[in-house]
Formats: sequence, structure tokens, C-alpha cells
Amino acid sequence: MELLDAFKWRYATKKFDPNKKVEQALVDKIVEAAWIAPTSSGLQPFEVIVITNQELKNKIVPFAMDQQIVAECSHLLVFAAWDNYTAERIDNIYSHITIERDQPSDRYQPYTERLKKKYLNRAPHENFEHAARQSYIAFSFAMAEAASLKIDATPMEGFINDEVDKLLGLHEKGLKSVTLLPIGYRDEANDWLVNMKKVRHPKEHFVTEIA
Amino acid sequence: MELLDAFKWRYATKKFDPNKKVEQALVDKIVEAAWIAPTSSGLQPFEVIVITNQELKNKIVPFAMDQQIVAECSHLLVFAAWDNYTAERIDNIYSHITIERDQPSDRYQPYTERLKKKYLNRAPHENFEHAARQSYIAFSFAMAEAASLKIDATPMEGFINDEVDKLLGLHEKGLKSVTLLPIGYRDEANDWLVNMKKVRHPKEHFVTEIA
Repeated sequence: MELLDAFKWRYATKKFDPNKKVEQALVDKIVEAAWIAPTSSGLQPFEVIVITNQELKNKIVPFAMDQQIVAECSHLLVFAAWDNYTAERIDNIYSHITIERDQPSDRYQPYTERLKKKYLNRAPHENFEHAARQSYIAFSFAMAEAASLKIDATPMEGFINDEVDKLLGLHEKGLKSVTLLPIGYRDEANDWLVNMKKVRHPKEHFVTEIA
Repeated sequence: MELLDAFKWRYATKKFDPNKKVEQALVDKIVEAAWIAPTSSGLQPFEVIVITNQELKNKIVPFAMDQQIVAECSHLLVFAAWDNYTAERIDNIYSHITIERDQPSDRYQPYTERLKKKYLNRAPHENFEHAARQSYIAFSFAMAEAASLKIDATPMEGFINDEVDKLLGLHEKGLKSVTLLPIGYRDEANDWLVNMKKVRHPKEHFVTEIA
């Protein structure tokens, strides 16, 4: 299947079959797509939490506008971004890059100095917003990978972030939740959205070509 | 090719072959992937500008940290988000959805009222940030589609948004640029990054499983 067909096939699933679980090897591919996604300066300022624990999924439902997909999905992915950029975080990833690329130890120093000058002088909420944007790329790559594997996934922003953060102990890890991505298999007979036409703005209003 | 392999194949191309142009039919697929991407409440609060005009691409270079990829790429995609949510914008898309889905004219009224209550009481910069996040999903789907077609694409945030906005007359259209995505074909012999190992945080630091 061409990817574009997978994109047309996917939709924001509103009803998962709670009895159909996604194979771990396929979940790993979805997580890997998120992991391999590009980020600004390669800082990769976010993490992914994969929840299969039923009790924990149930606890998140009331914080997610009572949407049962959070409980009924096979795996619940939580994308959580760094609450701020710090010198330590920047150095950590560039030390790792230096070793992995077998570079001289000071190879990236001028670059990380520039990054620190830029980020460490900015308000934490601005840095968090920037980190959150990066997490959207990974979130989207995960959705794309899921679609390509014919696994359903529902992008979710509508939840009480602070409550989810508390439940998962994210603040202690310097993280704040950004999005949820329940994955699983659609319960086609009971999903009101599955047969609704996918509607977008007319393409001529969406794209402008300047030749 | 599996999508995950395409994700591993892609990289932030630093040198395009200026003589290799991407076929229009393939560009259309990349734009379609952006167009079909999901957005919060289906509002699709952004547009894409596709630039092939060489003079215009050249003019953007100095606003994009002098990166020549902007001039040398085949097509330059600009993702620009709504500067704010408005009642008119919300009504526009839901009128269109109502017609396309052949629904009674008031079908979505309670829903759009809720959306207006939420968005129209929020500061424009907050709404813009939310719209910008949505554009990242489309931006990422475009990248994924490009990779699946073996077309190179370089995600870019490092440019002077206001200057690009002025150049493209975006403010008059109620838009603000968010990201650039030059696409084309890598000049493998002259790209310093092409053979560098793709490095990410160790996966055990990136993903937490709660079973």
C-alpha cells in the first residue's frame, strides 16, 4: 500500500475493539518511527510512555474528557516534552552524538555553545513550547507508521495535562505531557466516525503555488 | 520499502542537486499528504505555499541563515498557520463539512459553539501556537510521504518568520509562517551530512513501558 493510501485509510478512531491487542513487535516499530523522527538541532527533547496497564489507562479516562478509547485501546502512547532546555540536556545528547559518530571530543563544542546561548536565555515556557512542537513530528511519524501497518491511532490533545503528568510522575522527570496516541484496532461496527467522509478545506484554498 | 526504512533513509539534506527537479505529480502527493493530515477538531488551521520561482527562493536565503538549500531545492514548501481562530474560520470549515457529509444544516452547531467559546476567548498568540502545532502534523506527514517516495526533504525552523511573511504577503491573509520544507534530490557527493550516523537518545532513555 502506498503511504498516501494509508493516510486516507486512517481516521481518528472513536471506538477500539478492546479484545484486539497490537503485537509488541508492531508497537516497537511505531515507537521506533517516533524515535527516529527529526528534531531541531537533534536535541530530541521529549520521551514516549507506552501504557498497557489497564488500571492506569482507566485512571486517565476522566482526565481525557471521559473518552473510553483511552481505556479500550491496546496501547496508550503519551508524548511528553522537556519542560525546559538545560545545559546538561544539551551536553548529554551531544556527548552521545560525539561518541556514536566517533568524533574528536570538542567537535560539537562551538555548536552546543550557540545552542546554550539561544535556549538558556529564553523563558522555560517558550522552550517547552519549542520542545512540544518537536514532539509533534515524532507523534506524526508514529501515526504514519501505524497507518502503514494498518493499525488505528487517534491523535488526542483534549486532556488535562497536569493531571496526567501527576499520575505518571512526569514533572519529577522534567517532562510535561503534550499529546496522547491510543493505538489498536477499530471496532468498525460500533464507530460512528468510521464511515464519515474525511473533509478538508478545498485544496485550492489550502495550497498556493508560486512559480 | 517499509515506511520505517524510509524514515531511516531520510535525513536533513544539506546539499540538493539544483539540476534535479521533483516531478509535479510527486509534489502533488506530498502536498496531499499534508492536506489529508488530521488536525484538532478538523479545523485545518494552516496553508501550504509551494515555491518554485527561483528569484523568490533566492530572496528567502538571507532570511534563512544563508542556507543555500532554500535556493537549490526543487520546490520550497512553506507551512503557514492561522494567526488566530475566528468565528468565520470555524464556520467556514464546518459549513463545508456539513455539505460534504450531506448533513442537516444545524448538525454541527452545538459543536462549533463549543469551539468558539473555547478559542474566541483565548489570546491570539495562544491560538496561533495551537494552530502552529497542527501544522507540524501536516509538515511531518509531508516529510513521511516524501521519504516514502525517496524524495529528500529538510525540515527547517531557523529562519526569520516575519521577513518571510512580508515577502509572501502572509499577514494580509491572516497567516504566519511556521516551518520551511525544501524538497529535492540530495547531492550525495557534496553533502557533509549524508554519511553521518543518525544518532538519537539511547532508546531506554526515550521510551518507558508501563505494563
